Amino acid sequence: MTIISTGTSTPESAAAWRAALAEAALRGEDVVWFSLDGTEPDEAEAREAGVAVSVAHAQERGRDAVGDLLEHAERVGASRIVVGVRHRSPVGKLLLGSAAQQIILEARVPVVCVKP
Amino acid sequence: MTIISTGTSTPESAAAWRAALAEAALRGEDVVWFSLDGTEPDEAEAREAGVAVSVAHAQERGRDAVGDLLEHAERVGASRIVVGVRHRSPVGKLLLGSAAQQIILEARVPVVCVKP
Repeated sequence: MTIISTGTSTPESAAAWRAALAEAALRGEDVVWFSLDGTEPDEAEAREAGVAVSVAHAQERGRDAVGDLLEHAERVGASRIVVGVRHRSPVGKLLLGSAAQQIILEARVPVVCVKP
Repeated sequence: MTIISTGTSTPESAAAWRAALAEAALRGEDVVWFSLDGTEPDEAEAREAGVAVSVAHAQERGRDAVGDLLEHAERVGASRIVVGVRHRSPVGKLLLGSAAQQIILEARVPVVCVKP
């Protein structure tokens, strides 16, 4: 089975990537870095975790990169999707990003939300 | 370590409970059913999964049951929190419930979102 990690250059995505590797190592699964902005994963981290990694990209002409991610998750029979979210500060009124919210609401598999 | 499952009488919570038991069995952890509405867990399911379960409740006078859950998660050093969310229908514009959103944004540990 495969674990999908959202792939962007943000600290949130880096947290998702590390969490995906840890889950994959525990479960004996592989990880797909689903690149939402062209960023490539740190393959050295994957080697260190002993996890096989591949990279997938949103369709070039796709206007809905998150939809592409969800489709890809179904196509490969992903066991779960890991997304990074920002931590809300005690005074902040931060709302969950629309991409994270779309993934959480529309994915047919469990979605693991992690923070940097 | 401990996995916290939100505990209510909804189908979403039932999904969270089953996912929490599966995660706990895989990781060799126990589960806390954090009852948000007084509901008790199905202990037979836990026995079948071979997972130790305990029940915690929001503070009687607490006005913020989700805050109580997050505090409890920190107190017991929970490894993750499992919450149930509704699936968005293709035409629906369902937003993530405020309780789920609060847990995802404020928890210091990974939050696993599952659907019935």
